[in-house]
Amino acid sequence: MKQIVECVPNFSEGRDAEIVREIAAAAAAIPGVKVLDLTSDADHNRSVLTFVGEPGAVRDAAVALVGAALPRIDLRRHRGQHPRLGAVDVVPFIPIRDIEAKECVALAREAGRAIAEKYGLPVYLYEDAASSEERRNLSNIRKGEFEGLAAKMKLPDWTPDFGPAEPHPSGGAVVVGARMPLIAYNINLGTSDLAVADRIAKSIRHIGGGFRYCKAMAVDLKDRGIVQVSINMTNYRKTPLFRVFECVKSEAARFGVNVVGSEIVGLTPAEALYDVAEFYLRIEKFSPDLVLETKLMKAD
Amino acid sequence: MKQIVECVPNFSEGRDAEIVREIAAAAAAIPGVKVLDLTSDADHNRSVLTFVGEPGAVRDAAVALVGAALPRIDLRRHRGQHPRLGAVDVVPFIPIRDIEAKECVALAREAGRAIAEKYGLPVYLYEDAASSEERRNLSNIRKGEFEGLAAKMKLPDWTPDFGPAEPHPSGGAVVVGARMPLIAYNINLGTSDLAVADRIAKSIRHIGGGFRYCKAMAVDLKDRGIVQVSINMTNYRKTPLFRVFECVKSEAARFGVNVVGSEIVGLTPAEALYDVAEFYLRIEKFSPDLVLETKLMKAD
Repeated sequence: MKQIVECVPNFSEGRDAEIVREIAAAAAAIPGVKVLDLTSDADHNRSVLTFVGEPGAVRDAAVALVGAALPRIDLRRHRGQHPRLGAVDVVPFIPIRDIEAKECVALAREAGRAIAEKYGLPVYLYEDAASSEERRNLSNIRKGEFEGLAAKMKLPDWTPDFGPAEPHPSGGAVVVGARMPLIAYNINLGTSDLAVADRIAKSIRHIGGGFRYCKAMAVDLKDRGIVQVSINMTNYRKTPLFRVFECVKSEAARFGVNVVGSEIVGLTPAEALYDVAEFYLRIEKFSPDLVLETKLMKAD
Repeated sequence: MKQIVECVPNFSEGRDAEIVREIAAAAAAIPGVKVLDLTSDADHNRSVLTFVGEPGAVRDAAVALVGAALPRIDLRRHRGQHPRLGAVDVVPFIPIRDIEAKECVALAREAGRAIAEKYGLPVYLYEDAASSEERRNLSNIRKGEFEGLAAKMKLPDWTPDFGPAEPHPSGGAVVVGARMPLIAYNINLGTSDLAVADRIAKSIRHIGGGFRYCKAMAVDLKDRGIVQVSINMTNYRKTPLFRVFECVKSEAARFGVNVVGSEIVGLTPAEALYDVAEFYLRIEKFSPDLVLETKLMKAD
């Protein structure tokens, strides 16, 4: 079975479809790379490309994308609602199949070094690839944005991980890293009382004392007359879906409220759902190799 | 996304590895066919080949396999513990991805007709492809085996679906059909009392008044000092795993017994596990398209 890595570069052009297409095409041109999605947002003036492939191809495609974006995007003239630091703003590598998180960290370092050397761009490493705790969180690195970057980079704490110690004139800096796939998972409660969802969100999320890989907030679903605990699961292997679901169910019962449903927004890795089946059916010695589709993929 | 069908021919040679290899090779030689497994049993004197591919390729591979088996296996000299009717005994087509059960029925009919026309073999259709209720069950068709076939075929009820109304001298007859993937699923109980497992097996299985697509029997796991309800799930879409599991849990509680675990033996389609996650997490508007691996397969 081939190893598969996902890469989701965010770059600072969301209005000129031709430029967006050209930048995405540079990544797609690398043999073995498959583009799964390309989404542009005009208000944010930003695009997100999702592609997958074997590690080396995905790394080369990420580097090629930066090379195509740099001459086409000038941050000195860029306006948009979304915070950004660079022409290519952030490049995460995500383990999908048959690959460890630490292999994606190594891939992020290789890509970061290549981007710095080929294009003279300063590169910061973030999340699992971060060189310090402070740089783990993307918003810490991005604080001050492109406009504040020159001043920030003069601070001893903000020497880049690769490349020059000052911003690229038009391209700023690039944040490269590795992280687990994120699952956007919402749990719907049989009440219109937003305070209940808020209490539960606070109790399950990491910053409130809850699960380490869980971010949560309360959302009012006015159309349906119910409320929702809206969750980002940032590491489904260490904080699994079923544990958070059961915790929300138990906290809701405290208020006499039922869980009426849940939603997966976007995509989930199959493994996260296998884990749910394994838990509730109490399956002994479960392995993804028990799944026919795993055999099919291995035969490819 | 390409349609994928699985085919699992059983043929009556399990001792001569060279002959087994040659017969399997005839199926593997069809472009687009991927062999997932080949298992031979010397006591049964029988082999089982598992392969997958697009419908047309899988049909052609099944027909080619029969063509390779016919000159190499002579049932007049065949001995083995497993009941059998033909040199190639049974050829089921199983829907795996993006294909309906009824399309596999059509495929079974095409393959059956081709086998009869090319090789002069009588062909019976079984399970979902059966032409009468009586022929749905493989063991009804196989009763009397090769040795009783000539007499059985003289009966008006046992005219074959395709081909001559008498056995092929050395090859007997072939049973071709379509069925859902079967999941071998066992549920372990926290008791050494086999009578409890027996009571539960009888209550959940179809013939006892239980679930339509569920076969079950009690098994003593002496090494572990517990008992097991051993289950064949013959249509996981219509009788899902979670429903049988919850029923066993509830029946066991009646005896003050806990479910201590469960096991999947062999392979399960991913969809059967997605259904479990959907049920327990109460996921709204679930679709396999929410799974990253589905997107990956569609991109192939």
